[in-house]
Amino acid sequence: MKAEDRPGNHPVSADRIWSDLMNLAGITEAGRPYTRRSFSPKFLEGRAWLQERFRAAGLFPHVDASGNLIGRLPGSDPDAGTIALGSHSDTVPDGGRFDGTAGVIVALEIARALRERGITLRHTLEVIDCLAEEVSEFGLSCVGSRGLTGALQPQSLDLRKPDGETLREAITRIGGDPDRITATPRDDLRAWLELHIEQGRVLGEGRTDVGIVTSAVGITRVEIELTGMADHAGTTPMHLRHDALLAAAEVVAEVRAAALRRIEAGDGYFVATTGELTVTPNAANVVPGHVRLLVEARSENRPAMERFLDDLLPRVRAIAEAQGITLSSCHRLSDAPPAPFDPGLVGRLEEAARKNGLSHVRMPSGAGHDAVFFSRITPTAMVFVPSRAGRSHCPEEWTEKEELALGALVLFDAVLGLDRGN
Amino acid sequence: MKAEDRPGNHPVSADRIWSDLMNLAGITEAGRPYTRRSFSPKFLEGRAWLQERFRAAGLFPHVDASGNLIGRLPGSDPDAGTIALGSHSDTVPDGGRFDGTAGVIVALEIARALRERGITLRHTLEVIDCLAEEVSEFGLSCVGSRGLTGALQPQSLDLRKPDGETLREAITRIGGDPDRITATPRDDLRAWLELHIEQGRVLGEGRTDVGIVTSAVGITRVEIELTGMADHAGTTPMHLRHDALLAAAEVVAEVRAAALRRIEAGDGYFVATTGELTVTPNAANVVPGHVRLLVEARSENRPAMERFLDDLLPRVRAIAEAQGITLSSCHRLSDAPPAPFDPGLVGRLEEAARKNGLSHVRMPSGAGHDAVFFSRITPTAMVFVPSRAGRSHCPEEWTEKEELALGALVLFDAVLGLDRGN
Repeated sequence: MKAEDRPGNHPVSADRIWSDLMNLAGITEAGRPYTRRSFSPKFLEGRAWLQERFRAAGLFPHVDASGNLIGRLPGSDPDAGTIALGSHSDTVPDGGRFDGTAGVIVALEIARALRERGITLRHTLEVIDCLAEEVSEFGLSCVGSRGLTGALQPQSLDLRKPDGETLREAITRIGGDPDRITATPRDDLRAWLELHIEQGRVLGEGRTDVGIVTSAVGITRVEIELTGMADHAGTTPMHLRHDALLAAAEVVAEVRAAALRRIEAGDGYFVATTGELTVTPNAANVVPGHVRLLVEARSENRPAMERFLDDLLPRVRAIAEAQGITLSSCHRLSDAPPAPFDPGLVGRLEEAARKNGLSHVRMPSGAGHDAVFFSRITPTAMVFVPSRAGRSHCPEEWTEKEELALGALVLFDAVLGLDRGN
Repeated sequence: MKAEDRPGNHPVSADRIWSDLMNLAGITEAGRPYTRRSFSPKFLEGRAWLQERFRAAGLFPHVDASGNLIGRLPGSDPDAGTIALGSHSDTVPDGGRFDGTAGVIVALEIARALRERGITLRHTLEVIDCLAEEVSEFGLSCVGSRGLTGALQPQSLDLRKPDGETLREAITRIGGDPDRITATPRDDLRAWLELHIEQGRVLGEGRTDVGIVTSAVGITRVEIELTGMADHAGTTPMHLRHDALLAAAEVVAEVRAAALRRIEAGDGYFVATTGELTVTPNAANVVPGHVRLLVEARSENRPAMERFLDDLLPRVRAIAEAQGITLSSCHRLSDAPPAPFDPGLVGRLEEAARKNGLSHVRMPSGAGHDAVFFSRITPTAMVFVPSRAGRSHCPEEWTEKEELALGALVLFDAVLGLDRGN
């Protein structure tokens, strides 16, 4: 349903959300909208602007040890703990105006709406702009949510970006205190709720108002290296070749086939992608001697991921062997398990959608989010709003003003219900 | 047979050839042997050294309009014309010690051997180090042989290398005179004879002393671009994807299959390679949106090449269509016809091999050479010597000293026979 068709008086303002989002989007590298890379001058400019907006909304802002920008609205019961809402304000290079920022601005709007209505929560409310959710120049994602939840490896602070600065120095530079980041997570959190754009087409295809996210998929990345022989493409007869790209081509097809077998077997949401493929020497007149592939698979359920790998990897070995190619590497680069969200919070979000007459669907998140780290230490759930044509991480990324407002409404009601415990 | 097993007295010296080759190989970018890129300071250093060796052998050196280094041994009959021998002294990056240089040094050795034996040819003999046979930083190969044979397009002189220098400026810098390069080739040439390493495994596999090259294959390059949709690899279900790499993988397999069909159909020597494949954006978490492939095919015969393309290209279109991918480009980037060499000269080389008791085989050249351009204006043929394991354009490139000497012997006898007309 359209927001303007809904009866009654909205607690949240679609116009304020939109105005804030467009203002924040205007803080971008001029030549490549929309780019506000974590730790960059534009990122700090965006944060300074956000901090002012936090203050104007009556939130007390500070930067925590991990470099997260936190706006705080104290609750009436000091022992009730904290309900945290938010997402991230950094972008990928040449990204969009909604990924991350939508969750931060909607959280801010909920705090504003509460004050406007004279509502004081029992719980303290925090609006959190998590530091560097997107893969940063340090090669790490979710820096802030890792830090806050005790999941940042100490050695990660020594990572360097291309200009030589360490992560430790960069966190200090933006106001954090890396020496105070510990493996002990905060113990006052009672919930993490995050609104995010879907970055897919499930909601758009079904014309659904909101997605209620039940889990974040696990992500496994496998590096495969195939080594043949880089021979002269003119003088090496076909039967004497060891062409690594011919083997890689078969692997690419097999990755898709293995994912389809998981779906057909009823293993739930499953995707697998060969997103990176690099040929060496990559010259028209040389038989490819080496190919490196990065295969990524995502699944809601851990056993399905294992079945996928147990199916795929022997086939990769067989392809290499049949073609006289050496499988010089085949190992898991990374392996994040799925993160199931809190059934109580999921039910609360669903109830809020129902109460407001919104169409909704339970779905897994195919993308990683700060919520994954929060889910390890506190009850967590997410709300998805539609992404036009599923486009994301690009300037074409788009969500309608009304769609954002409906997502905010669901979150607002869930926060109220959670605070009152009814 | 091994050179040391041969009876009698060799006119050419294996040791002198070897010593010169190793000295020239020593002139290389220090950190990346063996690299002597055309127009670079190391290239000019190599040429200065060559010029000294030419002088020491009694050759009169000069640089012609096209930037070729030419050592001249005047003949006794001013009307007899010129027999030209040579190859090139430039290398690919991280190349070897024999590709090109073997032909220049063997040509020099033949001039030396003639003088040593007191033989004055009727014809003038020229030893030519052709400029920039390998693809230069200007994106062009065979610059010198194109220029000398009237095949250099005037607009090619405006090509720029990455540092901004034009080809016109670069040729001038190394002693050429680009304003005197014309479409009218030299009319005094009576033959071009070029010794080169095979860069393949035909001789090595058959333990054959020399290859007598009957033609150079035609080379056709086709650029294929496949455009799908660069979607999020986590949030885009398999059935909603337009993955350009999946289509490219099928194309890669089809290129090989189409080449095998030509061989099975009896179309002679035929090879086809997908040597370059570039994925965009090439990130683990993005479905490949675009792939560019360079397909190269080489054939001794022109109709076979057309049959290959008529077979392959409709299949490429069908693959794209079946996968919902746009074939955004599919066109010939370049299309060089095969170059048949001179039957008279081929017969003369064969006769010289036979007379010296050497095993030999007629074969096409799968690689391009300066000889291709010379063959358009004067009788041309080539001698191949074995390449260990077929390796070329790499530091492992290797030919034995004795193998080089046997090739030189064939060339020496052919030059004498040609000069005497018997």
